Amino acid sequence: MAQILKGAPVAAALDVETEKRAAALREKGVVPTLAILRAGEREDEIAYERGAVKRCAKVGVEARCVTLPADVPAEEFYRTLEDLNRDPQVHGILMLCPLPAHLDQEKARKMMAPAKDVDGCTDLALSGVFTGSALGFPPCTASSALEILRYYGVDPKGKRAVVIGRSLVIGRPVALMLLQANATVTICHTKTVDIPSITRQADILISASGAMESIGAEHLREGQTVIDVGISWNEEKQKLCGDVRFEEAEPIVAGITPVPGGVGSVTTAVLAGHVVQAAERTLA
Amino acid sequence: MAQILKGAPVAAALDVETEKRAAALREKGVVPTLAILRAGEREDEIAYERGAVKRCAKVGVEARCVTLPADVPAEEFYRTLEDLNRDPQVHGILMLCPLPAHLDQEKARKMMAPAKDVDGCTDLALSGVFTGSALGFPPCTASSALEILRYYGVDPKGKRAVVIGRSLVIGRPVALMLLQANATVTICHTKTVDIPSITRQADILISASGAMESIGAEHLREGQTVIDVGISWNEEKQKLCGDVRFEEAEPIVAGITPVPGGVGSVTTAVLAGHVVQAAERTLA
Repeated sequence: MAQILKGAPVAAALDVETEKRAAALREKGVVPTLAILRAGEREDEIAYERGAVKRCAKVGVEARCVTLPADVPAEEFYRTLEDLNRDPQVHGILMLCPLPAHLDQEKARKMMAPAKDVDGCTDLALSGVFTGSALGFPPCTASSALEILRYYGVDPKGKRAVVIGRSLVIGRPVALMLLQANATVTICHTKTVDIPSITRQADILISASGAMESIGAEHLREGQTVIDVGISWNEEKQKLCGDVRFEEAEPIVAGITPVPGGVGSVTTAVLAGHVVQAAERTLA
Repeated sequence: MAQILKGAPVAAALDVETEKRAAALREKGVVPTLAILRAGEREDEIAYERGAVKRCAKVGVEARCVTLPADVPAEEFYRTLEDLNRDPQVHGILMLCPLPAHLDQEKARKMMAPAKDVDGCTDLALSGVFTGSALGFPPCTASSALEILRYYGVDPKGKRAVVIGRSLVIGRPVALMLLQANATVTICHTKTVDIPSITRQADILISASGAMESIGAEHLREGQTVIDVGISWNEEKQKLCGDVRFEEAEPIVAGITPVPGGVGSVTTAVLAGHVVQAAERTLA
């Protein structure tokens, strides 16, 4: 029987800290503010925005929703982003992605002010993850995985960590963050031969492939901590499922995050924390 | 009996390519130019500078040595660097490190124009290594390891690669470059428990710890390709030695780079190639 590593208490603990620091900023006349830039009406983006707004309200971070129509002229979109870059009252910018097809997501990504990049999408923020310096902020999902480990007392130091997936949003940054935390890190991906033999060596397994229920007993052994970053809609079961076959994994491993209710429950708490940190840096 | 993966033929093959491209640039009136910035008279820096100048001459790259006294006033050093950043006739800058103690190496590193950063020390160049995009250039030593693999027909795709060391100059960039080349990559370091059990699983082993002769039979198995990035002076043997105990490794593995004459023989060829690429980009 594994310990179920729920996200909610991790988020709650982060919120306590963030709220304290947000209050301190307000006392100095600074209202930590997140701008959420959305173009169009994608359901998943709206749902994430709603979660972020709620979290911000809870911890004393101002959320400013900047919503543009799906067919917003490209120049207007970029100008809006640049206005947010320049606005001294905005400390963090969350650009909901994917952008509508006529907008150049890569261009927008490069355009964002690194100091306001609270979800780690600019080159400089990612460079900070790579070099282990605080140039910007890591992607919130990657930070969330680390926060879950920290909250549940799993120190990566000297442990074998295996990451499945090498995306810039989660796989690569979480691997580098685990390395920074002194784990011995292996990155697996679609070209990896015999993934199960590698994952069985892991003390900490981070699955971020997005391949629904692709990880099961053959990948696992007792004593492992499993962080399941995947979240997919299972048409057959009519419910959200992760990368890991939870029912199969849970009796084997020492600890596992549920889906939903695991990593995904922590990201907006990390986001709000990044906004407060970004605001604090403007005072430094 | 392992194949000895000498650097000289790798460098020679790179030189042929670089010379051709440099000649094409000169026909367009562009003289690809490397500025080598050195403060002080460290022997190792002078030796590397000499090698770089010689390589540049061979392939038609102009080398401009900018040498300042070890006690150069800090402001003068930074101004010199900025002049090189601005000079349209300089396409690449090599800043020899370590700088004298009164200079802020981190500040100088951040100051360099990323487009001219032909040895991958700026944040944006490193971000490019992390994200797999050509924002700048990877550190030459990391590129050299990959060039050796390429020259000797060792395709990292699907292979287990183990990197020992996590420095920004070699360990981390070479790991990300191997990942980009579709290897399954593990990074070991001083906090790793039981390194031999991990390195024995490697198909490709890159040792970049700088721990002289620390890798031997217990780390190795047949069929491996070993790239030894270490280079240290062995006082007892009165010769240069790598991280690997060569005599012990050579009968076991399939291929191994010698020290000296391995990775170190390729770096200036990579450097000259980067200068030509940087010059080509100014025309794009």
